[in-house]
Amino acid sequence: MAGKLWGVGLGPGDPDLLTLRAARLIGGADVVAYPALAGGDSFARSIAADLIPAGAREIVMDVPMTVERGPAQAAYDTGAAEIAAALEAGQDVVCLCEGDPFFYGSFMYLFARLSDRFEVEVVPGVTSVSACAARAGMPLVARNERLTVLPGPLPEPELRERVAGAEAVAIMKVGRHMAKIRGVIDDLGLLDRSVYVQRVGLPDEVVCKLAQAPDTAPYFSMILMNKGNDPWL
Amino acid sequence: MAGKLWGVGLGPGDPDLLTLRAARLIGGADVVAYPALAGGDSFARSIAADLIPAGAREIVMDVPMTVERGPAQAAYDTGAAEIAAALEAGQDVVCLCEGDPFFYGSFMYLFARLSDRFEVEVVPGVTSVSACAARAGMPLVARNERLTVLPGPLPEPELRERVAGAEAVAIMKVGRHMAKIRGVIDDLGLLDRSVYVQRVGLPDEVVCKLAQAPDTAPYFSMILMNKGNDPWL
Ligand SMILES: C[S@@+](CC[C@H](N)C(=O)[O-])C[C@H]1O[C@@H](n2cnc3c(N)ncnc32)[C@H](O)[C@@H]1O
Ligand SMILES: C[S@@+](CC[C@H](N)C(=O)[O-])C[C@H]1O[C@@H](n2cnc3c(N)ncnc32)[C@H](O)[C@@H]1O
Repeated sequence: MAGKLWGVGLGPGDPDLLTLRAARLIGGADVVAYPALAGGDSFARSIAADLIPAGAREIVMDVPMTVERGPAQAAYDTGAAEIAAALEAGQDVVCLCEGDPFFYGSFMYLFARLSDRFEVEVVPGVTSVSACAARAGMPLVARNERLTVLPGPLPEPELRERVAGAEAVAIMKVGRHMAKIRGVIDDLGLLDRSVYVQRVGLPDEVVCKLAQAPDTAPYFSMILMNKGNDPWL
Repeated sequence: MAGKLWGVGLGPGDPDLLTLRAARLIGGADVVAYPALAGGDSFARSIAADLIPAGAREIVMDVPMTVERGPAQAAYDTGAAEIAAALEAGQDVVCLCEGDPFFYGSFMYLFARLSDRFEVEVVPGVTSVSACAARAGMPLVARNERLTVLPGPLPEPELRERVAGAEAVAIMKVGRHMAKIRGVIDDLGLLDRSVYVQRVGLPDEVVCKLAQAPDTAPYFSMILMNKGNDPWL
């Protein structure tokens, strides 16, 4: 009988934000799989490090961070094949996923490759959006407000239109798009309603008003904005 | 010295989806607080029930489910005053919050009333959106897709406009708005791209295509839709 693939959300970085289910699954795993920056570290593995059993086999997917999709997709092809072999041999595989697996998570690339042939179960995790809002002390949405989540790489005209038409906004993947995003928010007069959160829950966490944010942001950073249309007092 | 108020996310219903931090805080609490339906049960308390210490004091906020805001806000006034008294007496208070506290959570009403006078820390939780997507086996957003979260009570014209302009959508608080929401999605030709999830992680969970969903939905239900504009294979 084939094994089962688990896509396990780890939350955004602080190991204390793993769910009880995630912690139990990882602690009992025979095979774990995770992406790593090609030739470098795995953020996902670092979050779960204390829980991975010493004897577990580790399948590492070396994913190059290129703008083109090809090289990364080739890495997921290779990883999926290795995971499929373990599943076919009857082993369960616990795939470690930063944050929530189905919320901009690379686990989706494995899911797309394996879910029609194998049993797959996803364990949801705390998203970086929830964790950043909590640290910033900034409620995301209440009552009948709408929340729009936007990726920072969107072209400037679309970003402008989407932010202008939104009520509450989370902008992911800020990184090298900082100047563009901050420019749009400033133009729309929303700078004082926006906060910047970098590497939440990690030793080099930064939480500040967007106006005070550094000019160069790391990849693991986010901007939260709420126009406060719906006063909830 | 005054105590500290914790707003602790519990996830959407399955006790196994609590975070390690939430479980530890609840297990060590002297005072817990939570909302309950006036004269009825507390969903939040039921999620955490096995972890609440036998000797803990429980502050129950009886919140009436009325369309007008007044009565519920009065209940939060009373609850905030009771919590403030405990904090002033030097006790920490652990407030139990279904899902993530800052994502359409009623904890925001306490935060608004108490955060300028007391130390408040929010522990983020798994949202119902992440949990419903996981159970439905339906990735939410990938790459440069946008996610729009909409409350079901929005007026039909606004709902129509927002769904039409979105890529991936989560519609919360479906309940008695089911006919209106399904009508809008059907008109837009998106029925076969939509799933319905009811009471995820609870014994009476339902997961099905929106076309097959019951005509009357409970309050704890959601619709997920993805137009699949950005093929992620
Ligand atoms: C590929 S997405 C993964 C999102 C993840 N699956 C989740 O549920 O949050 C990466 C983006 O998530 C955000 N992010 C993830 N972890 C973060 C952290 N610890 N602090 C701030 N932002 C974070 C950043 O915007 C980053 O560019
Ligand atoms: C007041 S909001 C609270 C949301 C919560 N704070 C969270 O983070 O998910 C209530 C809405 O959340 C959704 N919801 C919460 N728990 C759910 C569950 N177990 N199953 C399905 N939907 C749920 C439903 O749409 C419901 O109407």
